[in-house]
Amino acid sequence: MKASLFGPFENLTEDPDLYKTFQPQLEAYRSRLQEGILEEFKLPDSLVPDKFGYDVTRIAEKIMSDREIEITEMSASKLVELLTSGNLTSVEATRAFAKRATAAHQLVNCCMEMFIEEGLERAQYLDDYYKKTGKPIGPLHGLPISVKEQFLYKGKRCNGAYVGMIDNFVDEWAILLKILYESGAVFYVRTTEPQTTMHLCSGNNITGICRNPHNTKLTSGGSSSGEGAITAMKGSAIGVAADIGGSIRSPAAFCGVWGIRPTQKRLPLKGVFSAKEGKNEGVICVSGPIARSPQDIELFMKTVIDSEPWNIDADLIPLPWRELEPPSVKTLKVAICYDDGVVAPTPPVLRALKHAAAKLSKAGAEVIEWTPLNVESLIACCNTIYSAGENQGLKKALALSGEPVLELSKVAMSFGCGDDLLTANDIFQLAAYRDKQRDVYLTAMNQLGVDYILCPAYVNVAPEPETCHYWGYTALWNLLDFPNVVFPSGLKCDQRLDPKTTYKERSSIEAYEHGLYDPKVFEGAPIALQLTGRRWKDEELLQAAKVVSDTIFE
Amino acid sequence: MKASLFGPFENLTEDPDLYKTFQPQLEAYRSRLQEGILEEFKLPDSLVPDKFGYDVTRIAEKIMSDREIEITEMSASKLVELLTSGNLTSVEATRAFAKRATAAHQLVNCCMEMFIEEGLERAQYLDDYYKKTGKPIGPLHGLPISVKEQFLYKGKRCNGAYVGMIDNFVDEWAILLKILYESGAVFYVRTTEPQTTMHLCSGNNITGICRNPHNTKLTSGGSSSGEGAITAMKGSAIGVAADIGGSIRSPAAFCGVWGIRPTQKRLPLKGVFSAKEGKNEGVICVSGPIARSPQDIELFMKTVIDSEPWNIDADLIPLPWRELEPPSVKTLKVAICYDDGVVAPTPPVLRALKHAAAKLSKAGAEVIEWTPLNVESLIACCNTIYSAGENQGLKKALALSGEPVLELSKVAMSFGCGDDLLTANDIFQLAAYRDKQRDVYLTAMNQLGVDYILCPAYVNVAPEPETCHYWGYTALWNLLDFPNVVFPSGLKCDQRLDPKTTYKERSSIEAYEHGLYDPKVFEGAPIALQLTGRRWKDEELLQAAKVVSDTIFE
Repeated sequence: MKASLFGPFENLTEDPDLYKTFQPQLEAYRSRLQEGILEEFKLPDSLVPDKFGYDVTRIAEKIMSDREIEITEMSASKLVELLTSGNLTSVEATRAFAKRATAAHQLVNCCMEMFIEEGLERAQYLDDYYKKTGKPIGPLHGLPISVKEQFLYKGKRCNGAYVGMIDNFVDEWAILLKILYESGAVFYVRTTEPQTTMHLCSGNNITGICRNPHNTKLTSGGSSSGEGAITAMKGSAIGVAADIGGSIRSPAAFCGVWGIRPTQKRLPLKGVFSAKEGKNEGVICVSGPIARSPQDIELFMKTVIDSEPWNIDADLIPLPWRELEPPSVKTLKVAICYDDGVVAPTPPVLRALKHAAAKLSKAGAEVIEWTPLNVESLIACCNTIYSAGENQGLKKALALSGEPVLELSKVAMSFGCGDDLLTANDIFQLAAYRDKQRDVYLTAMNQLGVDYILCPAYVNVAPEPETCHYWGYTALWNLLDFPNVVFPSGLKCDQRLDPKTTYKERSSIEAYEHGLYDPKVFEGAPIALQLTGRRWKDEELLQAAKVVSDTIFE
Repeated sequence: MKASLFGPFENLTEDPDLYKTFQPQLEAYRSRLQEGILEEFKLPDSLVPDKFGYDVTRIAEKIMSDREIEITEMSASKLVELLTSGNLTSVEATRAFAKRATAAHQLVNCCMEMFIEEGLERAQYLDDYYKKTGKPIGPLHGLPISVKEQFLYKGKRCNGAYVGMIDNFVDEWAILLKILYESGAVFYVRTTEPQTTMHLCSGNNITGICRNPHNTKLTSGGSSSGEGAITAMKGSAIGVAADIGGSIRSPAAFCGVWGIRPTQKRLPLKGVFSAKEGKNEGVICVSGPIARSPQDIELFMKTVIDSEPWNIDADLIPLPWRELEPPSVKTLKVAICYDDGVVAPTPPVLRALKHAAAKLSKAGAEVIEWTPLNVESLIACCNTIYSAGENQGLKKALALSGEPVLELSKVAMSFGCGDDLLTANDIFQLAAYRDKQRDVYLTAMNQLGVDYILCPAYVNVAPEPETCHYWGYTALWNLLDFPNVVFPSGLKCDQRLDPKTTYKERSSIEAYEHGLYDPKVFEGAPIALQLTGRRWKDEELLQAAKVVSDTIFE
């Protein structure tokens, strides 16, 4: 066994005849989704561009009242302040977000299920509760929250974007949703994810592609594709997502919002649909929020962790959420990674890194350069762990309907050892290598005296749909399990500032990824950055990211 | 793949001709060990019984001064109080423990290496340091601590009880030893472990069998065999051990002392020698102390965790050690497991459980019966995980010398799938089953409203050497990773009170284990109990164990 970036893959699950039999179910699914667009919230067709390539983030405002705009522009933290003190009704908040979410879906195709009436009933219940008791039901009383489809939703379908499971009803809650619900959240939309949930992109055969709100020629990222888009569209106050290779961070980065991939075993993951069979401990998926500010990220983390989820999920560590003050920028020492040694970032991303370095230095932070450590070997290790079980579960789920296997699903299934099945000893070797490298990284941070590493969230800004192959800048941290916060740099791709440069690519994967970059097409795409901290120091990391963001934002 | 208690095993590593070539090295090793018995500390041969079957715990006192006895009878907590305040020199303490450790080794064969002169030099250095600075070097300033051979000791041999590695010098410290050393510990002996370190017993081809101080016909348990024995003999203040299936708890239980198997990722494990290759995450080995009191267990845990080992070991969770008050016995609700459904405990163990139930009830604790949950499946799962990699590492290490494979090594290598190599998907299934059962146990505890489960530490009191096959009462908790404290019940096996009963055994493994029990032979063996708590609530567990012990001790 040798770990590698890519391995053999043969596409054997497609079955056009079988797939045809699923067409009625697919049509019914899409019809229901269409019916979820309620007339009263609907964006007139005339406002929906008939071409791609536009910034659509502000179109919804054209049909919204000032009050509705005001509500949806508020941070979740502000909203719960009003909602839990009786100064805003949940119905009013939910209606405003429902309107914006509906427009978001019409503009970027971010939902797999819309059930706004149900959400409004829940909001009414919460308002009545408040009226009767004079108290909120919990810290998120009445807050409209969007949820990635992958989270089991009691009484609803959960298909994980597999056509073969399109009408798979579930009778249990993902623990995380249950906690949010009991904290007072209002659910009203479930958002899109790609086939296999193993793309940093959004395509599936059920609802198609979700697009980037800042430039609809581009992808919203993935696999929490709809969450990135709907949060950026202000169609929800906070989004619930999950990440095993970048699935929180890629959509947050591409859509210009905030996302955290916390250290493992802090937030419940149980009840997140995955076609993978058994528990692959080599790389652990984690759940986490996508939101518009670090305050909202903290609200989410604190609410969930304050509920002491370890009392109902034996996997979780009883680490309370610690409320910290942001550090002074002058005390920060940040190592910046300008190139991971495998695929160098494209011009806009490099510009944002340099911009951050200059701003941080000027503000008194100590900035040093991070020397990438064994990234190619680590990504080979990570990719090989992903595919260690010859992707049996994914293949079975695809074979259920014989659906077309999308290009990025093929790429994901050819990661690492591809179709080859590893042995137990192979797994043990990969885990040992991973653990050794965790110490290599920790030692390097200790020797440099840094607690934070600033790096790209991806090689590029959001690329065009169905193109992203290299996960290194995010997946590295899934393997090492050092926590990350992704946030907008405040800069956007600008063809004048970010022309394509000549560069001698070091490998075919680098050549491929660089080939995707087209400054003209990418115009206006937000440029994100990713800050990494020490394991289980999620609180310190979030505060540091806030300070870095405040310092560099223009 | 089906998990099972036992699988196929073929003994293919023995090579008598090759083994012969190791005789000079073996003789040299044993000679050095013999030379480690310094004349000034030596027990006269006349005091060493020429037969087995005696309680030898107090023989050393015959050659010790009152002051030496006083020192070695003190708790580690009391000792560090005196040592760190200049009221006892480390040289005096080390000399006293060295004398008792030497006697212990002569009486029960508990050491693999004795380097008392080196220990005394270190003690002198610490005394000089204190004299010069007026301050202790750390919280364990001058405390004599014994260490299981398996922990890498910089500059010394580390063979893991494999003849083929007998002269394997290492140039690094196990992180745990480094922390203890930097906290002021004095090392002077390294203690025995069995071949493969996968016996709940002590036999190896280098130093033979370690015996039980309370009855030398019996085993001291394993795999931290020497630590259980030397701690019970008061030959060290605290012992450093490790546990993947009972290796801390079996020797602590059999030798009548305290041991904790903390939840994983609290204490450093890096640098604990294992012939296993790679990192098998299915069941995680943990390190921990064996000591004579819960206070000393806490001293160890607190000292190590207060050093913030997560700053140098990326595997560890930054969970500070919380100093708690013991709960009132009246607030305790304890579920007692009288039978795990696979192998029922023998009469003395059952007597201790009933005694505990009566005493706890009388003191106002709520006592209920614990219904065993899926234990056979869980032990099959655990055993199958142990052997998932066809024991490749163990076999290679045995083959290095072609040494005779001891009976209990054969048993361990026939655990689970035995010689069969599992696939990655098998591993994922086993891990998923394990995680599901963790929640089953957590849910059961929640539903019963109990935080603690009291059960046997083994089917039996200490059996005769080389006989123990069933690890269920300890290994269950390694798989589930619920923490455990083992402690003496205060009762001892008594042939009048614990006659062999007639019982229709439910399986061959139960018949085998019950067949080992012989009240006449087992007379005087301490009866231990094991208390289990919630994951990462090691602090609460330790305090609860203290209260349970105080309540039931006669």
